[in-house]
Amino acid sequence: MNEFEIIRHYFRELTPPATGEILGIGDDCALLALAAGEQLVVSTDSLVAGRHFAHSVAPYDLGYKALAVNLSDLAAMGASPRWFTLALTLDRFEPEWLQEFARGMSELARTSGIGLVGGDTTRGPLNINVTVMGAVEPGRAMRRDGARIGDVICVTGTLGDAALALRLAGDAREAQACMGDDLRFLQTRLHRPEPRIAAGRQLSVWAHAAVDISDGLAADLSHILAASHVGAELIEADLPQSGAFLRCCESQQRRAHLLHGGDDYELCICMPEDDFLKAQAASPTALVRIGRVVEGENLSLIEATGDKLVIPPHGFRHFE
Amino acid sequence: MNEFEIIRHYFRELTPPATGEILGIGDDCALLALAAGEQLVVSTDSLVAGRHFAHSVAPYDLGYKALAVNLSDLAAMGASPRWFTLALTLDRFEPEWLQEFARGMSELARTSGIGLVGGDTTRGPLNINVTVMGAVEPGRAMRRDGARIGDVICVTGTLGDAALALRLAGDAREAQACMGDDLRFLQTRLHRPEPRIAAGRQLSVWAHAAVDISDGLAADLSHILAASHVGAELIEADLPQSGAFLRCCESQQRRAHLLHGGDDYELCICMPEDDFLKAQAASPTALVRIGRVVEGENLSLIEATGDKLVIPPHGFRHFE
Repeated sequence: MNEFEIIRHYFRELTPPATGEILGIGDDCALLALAAGEQLVVSTDSLVAGRHFAHSVAPYDLGYKALAVNLSDLAAMGASPRWFTLALTLDRFEPEWLQEFARGMSELARTSGIGLVGGDTTRGPLNINVTVMGAVEPGRAMRRDGARIGDVICVTGTLGDAALALRLAGDAREAQACMGDDLRFLQTRLHRPEPRIAAGRQLSVWAHAAVDISDGLAADLSHILAASHVGAELIEADLPQSGAFLRCCESQQRRAHLLHGGDDYELCICMPEDDFLKAQAASPTALVRIGRVVEGENLSLIEATGDKLVIPPHGFRHFE
Repeated sequence: MNEFEIIRHYFRELTPPATGEILGIGDDCALLALAAGEQLVVSTDSLVAGRHFAHSVAPYDLGYKALAVNLSDLAAMGASPRWFTLALTLDRFEPEWLQEFARGMSELARTSGIGLVGGDTTRGPLNINVTVMGAVEPGRAMRRDGARIGDVICVTGTLGDAALALRLAGDAREAQACMGDDLRFLQTRLHRPEPRIAAGRQLSVWAHAAVDISDGLAADLSHILAASHVGAELIEADLPQSGAFLRCCESQQRRAHLLHGGDDYELCICMPEDDFLKAQAASPTALVRIGRVVEGENLSLIEATGDKLVIPPHGFRHFE
């Protein structure tokens, strides 16, 4: 079976016909059309075995997540997902593995309305690259460089769940202290992050700047601060935490997980104070205010005591 | 140094500002604009160490080739290159290697007018993924499914050079029988293929169908035959061969290299007989007629004796 046949067999029938797809998989290139005036939004991300995931991860979850982390980048721009390509390097040819991988990826593709339009399959150490393309109306894309002093900083969903799940996976004693339902909730947050596409599109009406939280709140918000030449103050007590997180995370670990825990894939958005309540009411995902944009270049945390700490933006970095 | 800084440092300054680039590397996504009415053309290809190239390959050549094989797919559609993303998985962080890799990639990017708009860098077994995007006027894309009975089949450049270079690299005795200049020519054909972009754009005026020859003439032409539901007859004596190929290839090996040698990255095009001379005169790359489209589904070879052989389309396949 050659590469095209593999891709076709396992993936083609499982993805929806894509909007604007003139010619899909099987030619030298895909041929695609945007609607008049739409701008193209593009991002690429690879998942590498042993680096981004353990070899033991279920192939369904891996297929889901490889697409999810890329969709999250589209969400952070306020874009509508359209098309994606998949370059899959496989260490062995296992039909069951491929089928499960494709099923996980395809379920998310279907619910997100994104279509597979190109692929490449090679033998080698397991490596999954996805490139996503989306569309946005001119002027509506949420960039990192638009935050203004006085803006409210808010986040969708809750923070730290994925990082906690990862820690519990490596610590059986601590995991035992956590109820089964809570553990499952946290694992789902780690393995099946929901890209905040609808929220991103809706909130792009008001946002001055946005980023998705893949490397931790502090690291990702710092990208906005650097690009916008501003500082920020976060209120520690306002950082949103899930019930499972509150019950399962040892208290002395909470701050690190909330600020530096990776893999959350929530959105962090800066917007005018006057628009926040409208935005909160319109958002399809819970939206919580966590701080504000200030002068300077520091990211600070206001503790419950009222004390202010400067936070180093270290998150998860691949070449440190 | 984090992944964005790596990509920025080594690649950003070396690529030209891309046409239609509203927002490049450094945000969650790139933001790009096509001209009114243009269609988007997309392809993705990975190069994997030990599979597509030896670890000993010069990083300049690797950077060049990773982009070239993708540009060749755009050429086969008749598209104009615009933007590309690079997902680089590196087994170690070597500044000199990265610099040379970026230099090879950037020189080709500059001459091709394509701009780097997104990147991802991870540590892991060496894996290079490039996704290219181009533009084409509606109705002008060269597909695989448009060949018609009676069409002339033609190819750009010469065949078999890259496959011969690869064989000579593994056979010192045979390589010694080959002159230095010839050997260098063949190695350049293998390591620095010239994507036939200008030829693709020009020939798309007349072409009914096209494919780039990456897996060998027989395998790639067979994709056209299958998609167009036709057969083909090739004249063996008309298959274009370089002087170096004629001098360095043992005669009993020639047919295999011409028909099944991979990595040529020439274009194979089907067009109406009446247009061939015009097309040949207009093509910026040598264009040679090698056969014609016939009824049926077989790919046949007419030998110098006049005998006709049916050719199995086996080329280079990753999962055989």
